[in-house]
Amino acid sequence: MDSTGGKTVEHDVTMRGRKVIEITGVKQVESFDSEEFLLETVMGFLSIRGQNLQMKNLDVDKGVVSIKGKVYDLVYVDEHGGDKAKGLFSKLFK
Amino acid sequence: MDSTGGKTVEHDVTMRGRKVIEITGVKQVESFDSEEFLLETVMGFLSIRGQNLQMKNLDVDKGVVSIKGKVYDLVYVDEHGGDKAKGLFSKLFK
Repeated sequence: MDSTGGKTVEHDVTMRGRKVIEITGVKQVESFDSEEFLLETVMGFLSIRGQNLQMKNLDVDKGVVSIKGKVYDLVYVDEHGGDKAKGLFSKLFK
Repeated sequence: MDSTGGKTVEHDVTMRGRKVIEITGVKQVESFDSEEFLLETVMGFLSIRGQNLQMKNLDVDKGVVSIKGKVYDLVYVDEHGGDKAKGLFSKLFK
C-alpha cells in the first residue's frame, strides 16, 4: 500500500454517470468477473457489483483501478466494522 | 451539470477517504438519518448507509448533496433495474 515512500495512501472512489468507477488506494484485486469486483483497499475490502463490469485500468503500484459497467452497489466489507457490516455482508451473499 | 437549461444533468459520486461523499445529479432527498440517506438521483434511487452520517451540504437547485460519516455501502435501487436490483433491495431491507 505504501507505494509512494512513507505517505499514507488515500482511498478515493469516483463514479461518473454510474458507468465508470475509479478507485485509488487499492492494495489488491481479490477477484473479478462481469458481475462483481472484490478489491482490497487501504480502508477495507470493497465489493462492487453490477452488470457487464470490465476492468478498464489497473495499476497496482499506484493503487488505481478503473472499472466500466453499470453499477448496482458498492459495499465495504469490514472485518473490524462490527456486527452491522457483517450482517449486511451475510445477507448480501447468502 | 447544467441544472438550469434543459440539458441532461450528470450524476457523479465522489467519495474521499470513506468519510465524505459528494453526489451530483440529485433530484430530491427522500429521507435521511445518521445511518441511512435515501436520494433520488437522475439515474435512480441511491441508498447510502453508514455510521454517524451527517448532511454537510445540500443544494437542490444544483442537485448537489454532501454527506459526512463512515460509509458502509452505496446501493442503487432501480425500479427498472430488473430482478437483481429488486432482489438485493428486498434482501437489504427485509
